[in-house]
Amino acid sequence: AGVAAAAAARAADAKPDAYANEPTRWSGFAVRSAKPFNAEPPPGVLVRTYHTPNEAFYVRNHLPVPAVATADGADYRLSIRVPGGVAGAPRGGVSPTDAACVHTLSLADVQALPAVTLTAAVQCAGNRRTEMSGHRAVKGGAWDACAISNAAWTGARLTDVLASLGVPDVGALAAAGVRHVVFEGADADAEGGVYGASIPLDVLAAGDVLLAWGMNGEPLPADHGAPLRVVAPGIVGARNVKWVTSVALSDEESHSHWQRRDYKGFCPSVCLEDADYDSAPSIQELPITSAVGEVAVSADGRSVTARGYAYAGGGRPVVRVDVSADGGKTWAAADLAGADGQVPAAVCGARYRDYGWTLWSATLPLPAPGRGEVVVKAVDSSYNVQPEGLAGVWNVRGVLNNAWHRVPVGGEGEAKE
Amino acid sequence: AGVAAAAAARAADAKPDAYANEPTRWSGFAVRSAKPFNAEPPPGVLVRTYHTPNEAFYVRNHLPVPAVATADGADYRLSIRVPGGVAGAPRGGVSPTDAACVHTLSLADVQALPAVTLTAAVQCAGNRRTEMSGHRAVKGGAWDACAISNAAWTGARLTDVLASLGVPDVGALAAAGVRHVVFEGADADAEGGVYGASIPLDVLAAGDVLLAWGMNGEPLPADHGAPLRVVAPGIVGARNVKWVTSVALSDEESHSHWQRRDYKGFCPSVCLEDADYDSAPSIQELPITSAVGEVAVSADGRSVTARGYAYAGGGRPVVRVDVSADGGKTWAAADLAGADGQVPAAVCGARYRDYGWTLWSATLPLPAPGRGEVVVKAVDSSYNVQPEGLAGVWNVRGVLNNAWHRVPVGGEGEAKE
Ligand SMILES: [Mo]
Ligand SMILES: [Mo]
Repeated sequence: AGVAAAAAARAADAKPDAYANEPTRWSGFAVRSAKPFNAEPPPGVLVRTYHTPNEAFYVRNHLPVPAVATADGADYRLSIRVPGGVAGAPRGGVSPTDAACVHTLSLADVQALPAVTLTAAVQCAGNRRTEMSGHRAVKGGAWDACAISNAAWTGARLTDVLASLGVPDVGALAAAGVRHVVFEGADADAEGGVYGASIPLDVLAAGDVLLAWGMNGEPLPADHGAPLRVVAPGIVGARNVKWVTSVALSDEESHSHWQRRDYKGFCPSVCLEDADYDSAPSIQELPITSAVGEVAVSADGRSVTARGYAYAGGGRPVVRVDVSADGGKTWAAADLAGADGQVPAAVCGARYRDYGWTLWSATLPLPAPGRGEVVVKAVDSSYNVQPEGLAGVWNVRGVLNNAWHRVPVGGEGEAKE
Repeated sequence: AGVAAAAAARAADAKPDAYANEPTRWSGFAVRSAKPFNAEPPPGVLVRTYHTPNEAFYVRNHLPVPAVATADGADYRLSIRVPGGVAGAPRGGVSPTDAACVHTLSLADVQALPAVTLTAAVQCAGNRRTEMSGHRAVKGGAWDACAISNAAWTGARLTDVLASLGVPDVGALAAAGVRHVVFEGADADAEGGVYGASIPLDVLAAGDVLLAWGMNGEPLPADHGAPLRVVAPGIVGARNVKWVTSVALSDEESHSHWQRRDYKGFCPSVCLEDADYDSAPSIQELPITSAVGEVAVSADGRSVTARGYAYAGGGRPVVRVDVSADGGKTWAAADLAGADGQVPAAVCGARYRDYGWTLWSATLPLPAPGRGEVVVKAVDSSYNVQPEGLAGVWNVRGVLNNAWHRVPVGGEGEAKE
């Protein structure tokens, strides 16, 4: 984090024009950081629509918006690096010393492939960090519960892009020693160090990783990676690299700071000095989570209608959302709305994939007139659940907060903080 | 459950010889039910070896052991039902009225296919039900924390079996409308109703579902499904059908009681009368869990060494186990041991699969001489975690208890129950 913060600071300080490409943003955002730009929409707006409007989609930039985001796409180029061992001698492994083949594609090359549209939520690993800080101080930027949004993305399947270059399928790549797909973005610090991240090769197997140019039927906005970004559905935001300039098949994870020295979870008793980043896996799929976006008390003060989101990584559908209005003493299963307005519980098999989030709503009696505490917790298709509080999930980097989300109703409500 | 209990009771009462095929069992078991036989090993034995010895592997029979378990395998037959629509006209769907093709295989036919050995833990959905009953009464048989075991299974891949019959691959089956793989066992109640269960078709895609005849290098024991059983790694025990006699590709889940009116999770406020089984998905993959098997206090009473297991469904590796000796105030990451004695955290990608359990150990200072409380909680590769207590996961059927596991050390310790 020190490295990242220093890089961002250098970018802001040393080059006055580093932020020359920032777009005009929505006035409704709660801005968490101006440079680099980090902002989340108000919760009531966020849970109002299944697909988040592009202008209201949370923004998590690690570095200045690069020039390519606002330039004519005609000059944009994407490099795809395939290890020599893969094409030539599959049994030879994927040593970095093998001569690699680097393909160069234009935006038109990517857009010439079959276009696919899929809905996927993207969530920052640091979503709800502010709550975690309240439990015990953490290192990282503040986020309330809205560093998550949901959109319909349009692009080419990365597997189609690779196949168009003659690259063999995921099984053959795995057999040849490929383990990770490494991305770089055009966003850079003052020394030219660029943002980077990787995903495990296996994530490609489902065929749903996109190189996307469209968002909710519009061209990708500058803040969301124009002209082309990675959409790795089911995977944490940090690996959905924006302004992607490079895709490399590798036997190793990305060597970037954000892959190896950030975005990892630790035991609650581990402090910053003791954090052994090599011992912890990179965050990829995110655990089951949910939050309250809006509470509305009935005119007579006897009931509350709560609305919110729920999401699980890895394409695991949300199969149930439990809501309480009395601080967790009693619960009711909420009404759920997925992409088609319903969640097909009966077909929720173990591997049925739904990358979008689930919106939920519930109307419950209040324990006292106009007062109570709304609590939400969700369940995914593997019956994973959320922990009650922060004691077990707290970590020094303030990531992965999926504790039950609580919102007091009327004055102090029954909040137990 | 009423139906199952009644069926078991009828089997026990109406036919005195229904239990004529029960094998001789290990004397070390804690027997939870004699007829049908349900038993778990002592925790200290369970966590002593990575592969559970066959005699100590927990037994969860729903009905009497069938005659086929002890008969000469020469007469054993397996039927495989493929809907007519699949073979003949893939676009025609998989209507139950299509003429189906039923293949009949001998044990030798299955054993003629390439033999695969893989390690997989099998866990009962009701593991740790006794704890849940302590919180609030539930319906279901008692289990402590040892209704789980781990073995190396040998058999033919079900995908290989299907391919040997000319059945197309999972993608083609899905395109033709197949959604579930339905199994029946030879174990039956007095009226001839047999045990049945199904798994979603997608579970087959990884190629790891076996029709197994071997367990830890020995022939499958009678209690574990001889001569042939389903091993669906990463999936709850109830779907790993023993003494399998029938495999059917279907557009529907199994119609069995155990698939549709049992083995489902509910909101904590749902009582038996309100449980809407159609609203809840069948349990398939199980959530992240862990338990303490053994605690040993040092001679000077200053420290405790704890050992136990951790497991996540769906092949998600266990990436971290946190252990506390002071009731959860402070934590340390345990040492982990998978199949090869180590868990490769660095390669734990989002979809890297490890179907076996993980054994863990930790030595921690005790908060008072000879006294304390060991608590364990684990984290899977999607950073899913266990909930602190039972309040959120309690359900009227007493399944899916994955709360933090607590064991007092010395007298009352600091147990908070
Ligand atoms: Mo993030
Ligand atoms: Mo079970």
